[in-house]
Amino acid sequence: MIQQEMVIAGSTVQYVFDAGLSKLSSLCDKKTTVIITDENVFAAHGSKMKGWRTIVLKPGEAYKQQSAIDSILGQLMEMEADRSTTLVGIGGGVVTDMTGYAGAVYMRGVRTGFVPTTLLAMVDASIGGKNGVDVGVYKNLVGTIRQPAFLLFDTALLQTLPELEWQNGFAEIIKHAAIKDATMFNDLQQHDLHYFQQHKAALKQLVMKNALLKTSVVKKDPFEKGDRKLLNFGHTLGHAIENDQQLSHGYAVAVGMVYAAHLSQQLLQFKQPLELIQTIEQYGLPTHAAFDMQRALYNMRHDKKRVRDVMHFVLLQKLGKAVVHPIAIKQLEKLLLSH
Amino acid sequence: MIQQEMVIAGSTVQYVFDAGLSKLSSLCDKKTTVIITDENVFAAHGSKMKGWRTIVLKPGEAYKQQSAIDSILGQLMEMEADRSTTLVGIGGGVVTDMTGYAGAVYMRGVRTGFVPTTLLAMVDASIGGKNGVDVGVYKNLVGTIRQPAFLLFDTALLQTLPELEWQNGFAEIIKHAAIKDATMFNDLQQHDLHYFQQHKAALKQLVMKNALLKTSVVKKDPFEKGDRKLLNFGHTLGHAIENDQQLSHGYAVAVGMVYAAHLSQQLLQFKQPLELIQTIEQYGLPTHAAFDMQRALYNMRHDKKRVRDVMHFVLLQKLGKAVVHPIAIKQLEKLLLSH
Ligand SMILES: NC(=O)c1ccc[n+]([C@@H]2O[C@H](COP(=O)([O-])OP(=O)(O)OC[C@H]3O[C@@H](n4cnc5c(N)ncnc54)[C@H](O)[C@@H]3O)[C@@H](O)[C@H]2O)c1
Ligand SMILES: NC(=O)c1ccc[n+]([C@@H]2O[C@H](COP(=O)([O-])OP(=O)(O)OC[C@H]3O[C@@H](n4cnc5c(N)ncnc54)[C@H](O)[C@@H]3O)[C@@H](O)[C@H]2O)c1
Ligand SMILES: [Zn+2]
Ligand SMILES: [Zn+2]
Repeated sequence: MIQQEMVIAGSTVQYVFDAGLSKLSSLCDKKTTVIITDENVFAAHGSKMKGWRTIVLKPGEAYKQQSAIDSILGQLMEMEADRSTTLVGIGGGVVTDMTGYAGAVYMRGVRTGFVPTTLLAMVDASIGGKNGVDVGVYKNLVGTIRQPAFLLFDTALLQTLPELEWQNGFAEIIKHAAIKDATMFNDLQQHDLHYFQQHKAALKQLVMKNALLKTSVVKKDPFEKGDRKLLNFGHTLGHAIENDQQLSHGYAVAVGMVYAAHLSQQLLQFKQPLELIQTIEQYGLPTHAAFDMQRALYNMRHDKKRVRDVMHFVLLQKLGKAVVHPIAIKQLEKLLLSH
Repeated sequence: MIQQEMVIAGSTVQYVFDAGLSKLSSLCDKKTTVIITDENVFAAHGSKMKGWRTIVLKPGEAYKQQSAIDSILGQLMEMEADRSTTLVGIGGGVVTDMTGYAGAVYMRGVRTGFVPTTLLAMVDASIGGKNGVDVGVYKNLVGTIRQPAFLLFDTALLQTLPELEWQNGFAEIIKHAAIKDATMFNDLQQHDLHYFQQHKAALKQLVMKNALLKTSVVKKDPFEKGDRKLLNFGHTLGHAIENDQQLSHGYAVAVGMVYAAHLSQQLLQFKQPLELIQTIEQYGLPTHAAFDMQRALYNMRHDKKRVRDVMHFVLLQKLGKAVVHPIAIKQLEKLLLSH
């Protein structure tokens, strides 16, 4: 077990790596804690939650809505949860986002902790304090930014994770390596998805590295004014095709990274697009998808309901080094449509 | 016009006293602002909101619920409000509490400002950053603590305020004077409700003094660990009888202050209960009510769903000086039932 305290935007977050879920009782008191999880996680790991009060949500992005928050708040009241309660979200990003939000508003804020159970939640969603729900089709439209009191990482929980969710998690890991860590990228190149699924120690190391990498980016830039924007690598085009094509988030980001690599090559003389593409493939992720580029361009321009003439793209100078690069929409059209 | 910047829990709040509602356009841009108000305020002062985008809510505590927040968020989306939006709550405490909450969560937080239109909101509800909604009968069960960017005080708006709401506001003003400001108490003794309704300059002064008094208490103790508790003077018993007796908040607090004054006399040799009682009467507020004290005691003990054996009562040492005083429930029963 490795414990580490991080101060993010003035709040202290306790990181506990390489620990079993059983360690939870050292971080919060059974009597005053309510676990929030989803049906899939409860089916796979509910036995480890015996003796804890538990709220079980319907799984999936479709249920990441205010109505689920209303239901959580109602159940907390029935349990007579008060200001001394700790809410612990055990699940993927959907669960940790909703637990963080419910905890931010119940009685104007109670203590929260997260036990991420998907690879994506471990390396990305549980970190940084953003929480919230979707409103209809609009993703993460309401929420707050508020850090949890602790994060508990138990990679053994990933044994039950579906293959697609492994791939989704690796899209963010490849992103992290590409924008910030050439050594990690090298490590990823040497191995593949199967290797990390089989080698527990290597997986633990990789998860810890990625969780700390995202943490350090967020610490430096909690309000997304600078460095944190680099985390959007692959996401500008990714978001623009995700809904239309019904692609999983990781698949869309993977395709987005490939296009961003080509733009990097054309605009910044980035020399390693093929290395990136090959690595994406090693982790079971797609490098292209059938989509209408005109429509994707339209979506990008109209994201968050404002029409823009310049897009701020995250591009790579080399593997491990990213920059934000403004591209006029006219030029972007030319570059992407000629592709 | 008097402008003053206050830093509360790290946030800068712009106070604008003695200004007309027309000053709003110097605090936020019409193009990016959405006003939130209620039907009564809109009926009385809607003409001053011409040219501003406006969301009009149903008035009253009964509508201070998540469903109203959902409706606000939906309307903001229809208006294509984005992160650069300012939400301005123009109304009583119900409107400012809901505007603060909607603003805290829409897109993880947009700029907010309040124009309180009830006396109670001017001297109490709009100040301190607490926001939120009720859940069923549970008051303020969800919300956040987050300061607005500005507060605009226009006492001319009070001309349309119903008599009962004037009285409600004065309950909090008398409370402020009793716990913190002997000079203000003296001033209140010299006059009555009618006087302040007629004398605009005196009213402006009184509103400003009270807004600043509450601000200074909140500034010193933003998380309610010490001094801010004194603001509960009259509220412990007040809350316990408010719902059961269908009393207005100010009426219940007035009665609560009278009982607290008697307890202060018995426990702390407080010498001025009659002065307090007389002042309460001068402002149209009741000094007693028909209620079941056994039931009120039960409510007090079971407030926030925890059974307590000791109550922390706010008592007066003298007018202008309050303390928190623990009273064993057994003793409290004896004192209150013998009354
Ligand atoms: N807050 C942030 O900064 C941030 C960052 C990135 C993503 N997110 C959010 O995270 C969400 C996506 O997270 P996700 O990919 O973890 O999705 P998810 O929570 O929906 O989990 C994916 C699926 O895996 C299941 N599952 C979870 N753990 C499992 C396990 N151990 N075994 C078996 N099944 C398991 C879930 O029930 C679900 O069906 C999105 O809503 C996104 O907006 C938030
Ligand atoms: N956030 C805090 O710190 C805090 C502190 C105290 C009270 N509160 C909250 O404030 C609320 C009570 O506030 P309130 O007493 O202002 O109630 P309110 O907002 O319901 O207003 C009272 C009534 O007066 C009407 N009204 C408002 N301004 C008017 C005007 N200028 N002319 C004519 N009618 C007008 C309203 O429509 C309503 O019918 C409660 O929900 C309470 O929880 C919050
Ligand atoms: Zn992502
Ligand atoms: Zn009050």
